[in-house]
Amino acid sequence: MSLVEGFLSSSERLAAPGAARPVNRPLRIALFGFGTVGSSVARILAESSPEGLELTHVFNRGVARKRVDWTPASVVWSEDADAVLASDADVVVELVGGLDPVGAWVRRALENGKSVVTANKKLIAFHGVELERLAAARGGHLKYGAAVAGGIPVIPGLEQGLAGDRIERIEGILNGTCNFILSKMEAGAEYAEVLAEAQKRGYAEADPTEDVGGLDARAKLAILMRLALRVQVDPEEIVPRPITTITPVDFSYARDLGSTIRQVSRAERAEERLAATVGPMLVDQRSPMAWSRGTENMVIASGRYGGDVVFSGHGAGGHPTAVAVVSDLLALAHGSRRVEIPSQPARVGGEFELPHYIRFLVRDRPGIVAAITGALAREQINIRAILQKPGYPADALPFVVTVEPCKSSALRRALEPVRALDCMLVEPLDLQMLE
Amino acid sequence: MSLVEGFLSSSERLAAPGAARPVNRPLRIALFGFGTVGSSVARILAESSPEGLELTHVFNRGVARKRVDWTPASVVWSEDADAVLASDADVVVELVGGLDPVGAWVRRALENGKSVVTANKKLIAFHGVELERLAAARGGHLKYGAAVAGGIPVIPGLEQGLAGDRIERIEGILNGTCNFILSKMEAGAEYAEVLAEAQKRGYAEADPTEDVGGLDARAKLAILMRLALRVQVDPEEIVPRPITTITPVDFSYARDLGSTIRQVSRAERAEERLAATVGPMLVDQRSPMAWSRGTENMVIASGRYGGDVVFSGHGAGGHPTAVAVVSDLLALAHGSRRVEIPSQPARVGGEFELPHYIRFLVRDRPGIVAAITGALAREQINIRAILQKPGYPADALPFVVTVEPCKSSALRRALEPVRALDCMLVEPLDLQMLE
Repeated sequence: MSLVEGFLSSSERLAAPGAARPVNRPLRIALFGFGTVGSSVARILAESSPEGLELTHVFNRGVARKRVDWTPASVVWSEDADAVLASDADVVVELVGGLDPVGAWVRRALENGKSVVTANKKLIAFHGVELERLAAARGGHLKYGAAVAGGIPVIPGLEQGLAGDRIERIEGILNGTCNFILSKMEAGAEYAEVLAEAQKRGYAEADPTEDVGGLDARAKLAILMRLALRVQVDPEEIVPRPITTITPVDFSYARDLGSTIRQVSRAERAEERLAATVGPMLVDQRSPMAWSRGTENMVIASGRYGGDVVFSGHGAGGHPTAVAVVSDLLALAHGSRRVEIPSQPARVGGEFELPHYIRFLVRDRPGIVAAITGALAREQINIRAILQKPGYPADALPFVVTVEPCKSSALRRALEPVRALDCMLVEPLDLQMLE
Repeated sequence: MSLVEGFLSSSERLAAPGAARPVNRPLRIALFGFGTVGSSVARILAESSPEGLELTHVFNRGVARKRVDWTPASVVWSEDADAVLASDADVVVELVGGLDPVGAWVRRALENGKSVVTANKKLIAFHGVELERLAAARGGHLKYGAAVAGGIPVIPGLEQGLAGDRIERIEGILNGTCNFILSKMEAGAEYAEVLAEAQKRGYAEADPTEDVGGLDARAKLAILMRLALRVQVDPEEIVPRPITTITPVDFSYARDLGSTIRQVSRAERAEERLAATVGPMLVDQRSPMAWSRGTENMVIASGRYGGDVVFSGHGAGGHPTAVAVVSDLLALAHGSRRVEIPSQPARVGGEFELPHYIRFLVRDRPGIVAAITGALAREQINIRAILQKPGYPADALPFVVTVEPCKSSALRRALEPVRALDCMLVEPLDLQMLE
């Protein structure tokens, strides 16, 4: 005998979205986008045939070349988005991505009382609050468990399991492409070579700016901030720093400091101000973020009551992301409501106060260290260590200064005159250090 | 403006348990047990005052000595369980533990249409299926997010975020006391000394058998098996092995093998058979389980589609466990339904096929290795390595044999004649090795 008599109790059927949907009828699913994730969703539905879910429509541009023979014969394949939006599907699964024309499709679906399940971090980061209001007003639901960290249940974890805590900091590795590149560079590879490999494997786009520039991670961080810190921020207030400035010598110095380098996304409330940052940082080799390799994602939520909770796993890829989509669909079919986490609009105005790693690349001459230390002293920034490894040529000499916790803005002011020195071959690289 | 207009939408209020509960009235909470976790729950409710939740009753034996002055004056403090069960509370939070008389109280609460939130792993492992049926029949809900891995949202993660996957293996570190003891032993301490420290710090009971013997972890594993592998098992079919047989020399040999030792709980489907085990095992130093220190818990769910997902954090303690309880209460107040995961009764009949570590302690004499290798050969078990470190006395000589993957039952048969050898000073210790 099964644990539950039927898959859905009658009260759950009544509570499910689409009030007009007859009891017993499965949730009718229209899939928008039949790429890697979309075909994985269809594959899981075909193989696992979870009760209560029925794939009824697939929309894709040029759908003929996408069509497969292993979905039910009843599925309508279409390249007419309007027709699918006007169909009797109960849920639109949006896997096309981007803001336009997808935003309009999602709005139309919600206006018609349909629910929407999406993996579109950009849409949710920029328009999630408005779309959730629209869904609530029209009796549908908006679910986006796949938008952050793909197959890792961070969003349900924050909405359900940690709702009772007060999360004070959220940080993690939210972009698998950057993690792949940096963990390969840690093992000795050069940036350009690893980027080419990531592109070949399909981990990075032809134009990798969204990933390596931090825009993708920024959108995800904004979503996590809403659920964890309960603030609605404009993602563009988070200024990302690219990983493209990291060179092999930085990994070498990081190792000497007991650290490695990861693209970290991080937000916290500090003295009633909100700080948020995305970019490469030094992380302690003994910390969970240093363990994260390849395309893995990781999220660490630090609660006032529960302490640190770590989630990690495959943050991207067709199958893991599809698991999050199918889980959201099952939640809809079961009439599962998320715990509404109230949030308030907020500005990103604070700054972290962290130690920094500053790497210089200079044509050597007397007086450089004196100039740098003098500049730091004028901003009251304490030096922790000066490291200069042997074996580099004097005409392109890398060396590192680490400083005690300070604000990035103070460090930026201190480095202003240093950047102008004629011996500087590149912009000094400053990275926050997490301990 | 808040993200949601009110805290609960009207449809959510209607969907909340206790159908007779008027719209707008908060959920009335009766706390059974005001020990570490119970007082933490009251503390979070007092400090965070989450909307929709109201503490109305506290039951504890000898309640006078428990009474505090920072809960609302309206709270009824009582040592009469029957009176509290007959009260107008909507939810009973059961934090007393054990099967008797707690099982009867929980049944009575559910029979009266109340919901129950509990951290009682034993009750859920042995009677969860029956109690869930009772709750469903009477219109209440049973929630037990705090029963496994305290503050880590593993249960919501499995019910919500991973419901769309097919989990094939679940494993982890489910007992903080054992992890505290073993990670301290890894750093050089002796078992008895660490146990005493754990008892002093309140991590271990005066009688530590439930923890070190594996009974606590076994109950938690049975609960995870229901949610992850979708099987209802009798916890007593999982035979636990105690950590008390581990000695410092085992950590020394484990280190030479690139491993350490943890109490691991593990279950998987292998060739249509269900294998489940709890006990000390060798884990690779580079694996997530080796990173887990102190009283931390960790759960790794391996899905067919999503791969490995790791959850870790504080598995025990008042505040982390209380976070899970308050999160369950919020889910009830919001009318959140869990995704019902259907499960089937099943027997634990399979065996893992893993490499093993076997440590012998002998009074040295010629022919011992020949006897052991001969015994293993008769069961077709291949030796991987024989390790004998210098520096031990010949009259109490520890040495280790590791073998290629085999079933524990075959190894037990092979070791039968070896155990009888007159030179064996203690039972040979065999541990599974996770790679």
